Amino acid sequence: MKIVHLAESRVFEEKGFKRFLLHDSASFRILNFNLMAGQIFPVHNHPAEGQVSIQVLEGTGQFLGGENAEIPAAAGDILVCDIAEPHGIRAESDMRILVTIAPPF
Amino acid sequence: MKIVHLAESRVFEEKGFKRFLLHDSASFRILNFNLMAGQIFPVHNHPAEGQVSIQVLEGTGQFLGGENAEIPAAAGDILVCDIAEPHGIRAESDMRILVTIAPPF
Repeated sequence: MKIVHLAESRVFEEKGFKRFLLHDSASFRILNFNLMAGQIFPVHNHPAEGQVSIQVLEGTGQFLGGENAEIPAAAGDILVCDIAEPHGIRAESDMRILVTIAPPF
Repeated sequence: MKIVHLAESRVFEEKGFKRFLLHDSASFRILNFNLMAGQIFPVHNHPAEGQVSIQVLEGTGQFLGGENAEIPAAAGDILVCDIAEPHGIRAESDMRILVTIAPPF
């Protein structure tokens, strides 16, 4: 049993988005990314089994998908997709996201 | 690709905590539980492989564990444990939690 405090990783950086590995096990990997307004987590995908969830903790922006898809993303919104599907995020304000990958690849 | 809006499941009920299944796949199951102040998600565990995360979205209370353990739980705190480990939650204010189970059992 382990407790993670998201308040402890509330760090932003002008030179690029910040990445915090919060938990990693055979079951899932949990990460927190913090993006300043204008920063982008580029669209990517991995040839792996499993799914990923991207939960917006704070701020607003756009979920990014294949073929230049953009879907509004605000606090309380969660994108769920296959790890193999293109996904990314663009911050319009300072933005924190929680990413869960299951199983880790 | 699917989007879940946590605002849509912000429902509390006096007769007992509310449970919303947000996503279910071979990779993970994502649920939202809403507890009114005083409501309890009793300590339980399952003889299954895998892990569970319990993220506090709103409110304050206590994470519950085996042997009457209580750990303060507030918005932004995440408990991670094995599905086989005893876990539960007690709400001291109205409280929303997001639970991720990987893999579902």
